[in-house]
Amino acid sequence: MTDPTPLTSVEARELLPARIDGPEAAVGRLWDPSASAEAPADAVVVLARLDADAWAHWRDAGIAAVVAPSTDVDALADVRDGDPARWAVADTRLALARLSRRLDPRPAVAAVGVDASAVVDESARLGARVAVGPLAVVGAGAVLEDDVVIGAGASVGAGARIGAASVLRERVVVKDGVIVGRRCWLHAGAVVGSDGFGFAPGPHGAERIHHLGTVVLEDDVEVGANACIDRATLGATVVGSRTKIDNLVQIGHNVRIGTDVLIAGQTGIAGSTTIGDRVVIGGAAGVADHVEIGDDARIAGGAGVTKSVPAGDAWGGYPAQPVRRWVRERYLIGRLEAIWAFVKGRA
Amino acid sequence: MTDPTPLTSVEARELLPARIDGPEAAVGRLWDPSASAEAPADAVVVLARLDADAWAHWRDAGIAAVVAPSTDVDALADVRDGDPARWAVADTRLALARLSRRLDPRPAVAAVGVDASAVVDESARLGARVAVGPLAVVGAGAVLEDDVVIGAGASVGAGARIGAASVLRERVVVKDGVIVGRRCWLHAGAVVGSDGFGFAPGPHGAERIHHLGTVVLEDDVEVGANACIDRATLGATVVGSRTKIDNLVQIGHNVRIGTDVLIAGQTGIAGSTTIGDRVVIGGAAGVADHVEIGDDARIAGGAGVTKSVPAGDAWGGYPAQPVRRWVRERYLIGRLEAIWAFVKGRA
Amino acid sequence: MTDPTPLTSVEARELLPARIDGPEAAVGRLWDPSASAEAPADAVVVLARLDADAWAHWRDAGIAAVVAPSTDVDALADVRDGDPARWAVADTRLALARLSRRLDPRPAVAAVGVDASAVVDESARLGARVAVGPLAVVGAGAVLEDDVVIGAGASVGAGARIGAASVLRERVVVKDGVIVGRRCWLHAGAVVGSDGFGFAPGPHGAERIHHLGTVVLEDDVEVGANACIDRATLGATVVGSRTKIDNLVQIGHNVRIGTDVLIAGQTGIAGSTTIGDRVVIGGAAGVADHVEIGDDARIAGGAGVTKSVPAGDAWGGYPAQPVRRWVRERYLIGRLEAIWAFVKGRA
Repeated sequence: MTDPTPLTSVEARELLPARIDGPEAAVGRLWDPSASAEAPADAVVVLARLDADAWAHWRDAGIAAVVAPSTDVDALADVRDGDPARWAVADTRLALARLSRRLDPRPAVAAVGVDASAVVDESARLGARVAVGPLAVVGAGAVLEDDVVIGAGASVGAGARIGAASVLRERVVVKDGVIVGRRCWLHAGAVVGSDGFGFAPGPHGAERIHHLGTVVLEDDVEVGANACIDRATLGATVVGSRTKIDNLVQIGHNVRIGTDVLIAGQTGIAGSTTIGDRVVIGGAAGVADHVEIGDDARIAGGAGVTKSVPAGDAWGGYPAQPVRRWVRERYLIGRLEAIWAFVKGRA
Repeated sequence: MTDPTPLTSVEARELLPARIDGPEAAVGRLWDPSASAEAPADAVVVLARLDADAWAHWRDAGIAAVVAPSTDVDALADVRDGDPARWAVADTRLALARLSRRLDPRPAVAAVGVDASAVVDESARLGARVAVGPLAVVGAGAVLEDDVVIGAGASVGAGARIGAASVLRERVVVKDGVIVGRRCWLHAGAVVGSDGFGFAPGPHGAERIHHLGTVVLEDDVEVGANACIDRATLGATVVGSRTKIDNLVQIGHNVRIGTDVLIAGQTGIAGSTTIGDRVVIGGAAGVADHVEIGDDARIAGGAGVTKSVPAGDAWGGYPAQPVRRWVRERYLIGRLEAIWAFVKGRA
Repeated sequence: MTDPTPLTSVEARELLPARIDGPEAAVGRLWDPSASAEAPADAVVVLARLDADAWAHWRDAGIAAVVAPSTDVDALADVRDGDPARWAVADTRLALARLSRRLDPRPAVAAVGVDASAVVDESARLGARVAVGPLAVVGAGAVLEDDVVIGAGASVGAGARIGAASVLRERVVVKDGVIVGRRCWLHAGAVVGSDGFGFAPGPHGAERIHHLGTVVLEDDVEVGANACIDRATLGATVVGSRTKIDNLVQIGHNVRIGTDVLIAGQTGIAGSTTIGDRVVIGGAAGVADHVEIGDDARIAGGAGVTKSVPAGDAWGGYPAQPVRRWVRERYLIGRLEAIWAFVKGRA
């Protein structure tokens, strides 16, 4: 842990962005709103709501600054000299994201350079300020662009390319020939580029189809811990820019995912399926192979999608259907007691 | 494998605990009740039921001792000199657990000390009898208390603390600052303390919320192979004492799990949800974010829990509901054929 | 990547097997049928259908050979001198599998021998042409038969045996005493032989049952990335020959799986369940403990199997039931709107 440089009101005005009420403040740490202890004098707290009670609490807690919705800050009736600063924002969640990044005490990398215990093939090419952690492996012909961080025990296959400022956490496996864009984060244990699950029935049992394609992660993609993204049979499995994939998700071979998609934990996308832009998929959902999820569609957690979903639709259930119909179906099933009583009474 | 020292009747009386009938015996290995081969003369078998047929079988198999329910042992009609010992217990499963621990031939650790190939930061603090396996990594300022075992290729992050006698199996990742209690077992590939899945929509796509909190595993917690437990946004994700988490389970950021909870394989608990004490959750269940599962609740395998569950309740289904209601709903759906015939006949 | 030696018509006739129409050809790479670019002159493409339009396209693309169903090749009306070769096959998927294996440019192993950074116990026994990758660990008394490949960072436990020509990819963990057959493929991050999830309630909380059994993978088994197969309490968890297990699948302790089974991604099989031969299980299905799935049964993706399934049956749904009944149930639920209107109208 290293203490970040303090964040001043002036910087906060630009960063969050925020309108600054009250005293100048310089904050060094982001405070947990649910913590019961007193706050240190250099702490900032982000509150989704700031009413009179919350204001009284945080004033007493001795915090340096309170981030809250502008309308809540405007409505504060009781403000005195010496009170904490109020940083009024339009979007407290965005402010939280930016403060969390700015005040993250964890160094992205322990030290720039290649750890003595790492095994880096001499034909690999490393850009400026690259960090390769202990016991990591970088294969022949791999390319690590500027500012890449390779975590302890991670493995980059032969001929793979990791884009500038991307981070591979502990034990990540990026297989041979995989292309990772810029500023991607791959969390511990993720596997990108393993052979897909494809077999052909032969006279002596299933024969494996070797997957000669690859995986392309575009820029700013995030892949969760122990998640798996399989390489294509031929061609590429593609994950679009700014798409975020949670822990233990499975992406099958030849899947194509658009940009700005969110896929929550333990969801599975079977082979050759296409996911449009800005799609949101809840946790533990399953999407069958060879279907298409249109742009801006929303899939409920736990849903089992067996056919294509039109753009903009919200689907849920197993098998999945439009949410409106699913809710109606649940309502009608709730009427079964009455229906059965009626039928029994007249049969 | 190392042969454990033989377990005598005297020790068994205390350990299981058991009432000893028949000859003194010393056993060195736990025998598989489903094995068809003859048993070696130093074997003990644990039987959930011991009737006359089973007794005849095991007497002939030449086994040293039979562990069985006291009532079954009392009811044995045909016992002669030279027969195997009968160890009568109140709870055969508990006896199995204790015998399996006592007679485990696998050394917990190949050798105490730090393997020459491990990379241990010089600022890490190691207690007595700590074992750090080959190619493991221990980061700056990490603390390994007495008798900790770090498996091959496992990684302990900067500032993390591993409590006395805890065991990290192969390739486990414990991230920076995570607190692991005493006597915990983390199985191969588990990831504890990765950043949670939290983003804020920004003008140029989702912006990641850095997770500045941590994970606290209390004492005697077990985490399954390739399971993931995310660190909190702020504060801590907490797993209570004696809670057991199976393989491939996902625990989201800021989840709080009570004590003595059992969570079976592939279940997912989404962010900020609270699980009470002694809750039992079946395999592949999903629990939504920000809900509360009360103490002693039971959740069926495969259930999709979308709202809070009262203490003591049993829920199942997708979306989940009280099991009694779910069973009734299944019954009524089974009546649909008759209902439809009735309606068609009169419409 | 290394260019494979070109595959000639003569070899293709035997390998696929194919009937050869048109010119002799020697191909060096397998081409993606969905690629829009022109094909290089040494490429072969496998087409599930070859009609006149496709033929015109691939002729123009300048490809060396087209693999297509015999009936489609026979029906080609417009064939001239200088056209690409037609390799007529009975089964294009099988042809794809065999071409993908024959033309895989990825060397199975960077170099035969033990990498200088690997940690191999001196009591381990290595056969001919074994390759142990960087930072891999091989424990005491382990046996690696001829032609085994151990990937970077993989770990083979004490006393484990890896059969001839089996491949462990990056970071695979094979625990102590596990038996892996011949020609098995274990993908990155898979864990085979971790302790099962078994506990006994004791006076001070759950007591762990140490799992003293093992795992046996027979020949030609495939285990997906980050999948987990637990060792038996006593005896063995068994996976039969030619069975293929996809990514993130969980196989519980004491499960017995037959031969030629296919289990798709994220499916879970709970403890002590038996799966027959040639069973096919879709993705994200769950099978309860202590049930039996008969030979040739088919389980739909997402199904929750709570009881035994007869041989040859197809089941789906949650809880799972015969597919025919499940489809009928879905149909009847679709009639609920009409039923409810009828009942409301007469109540």
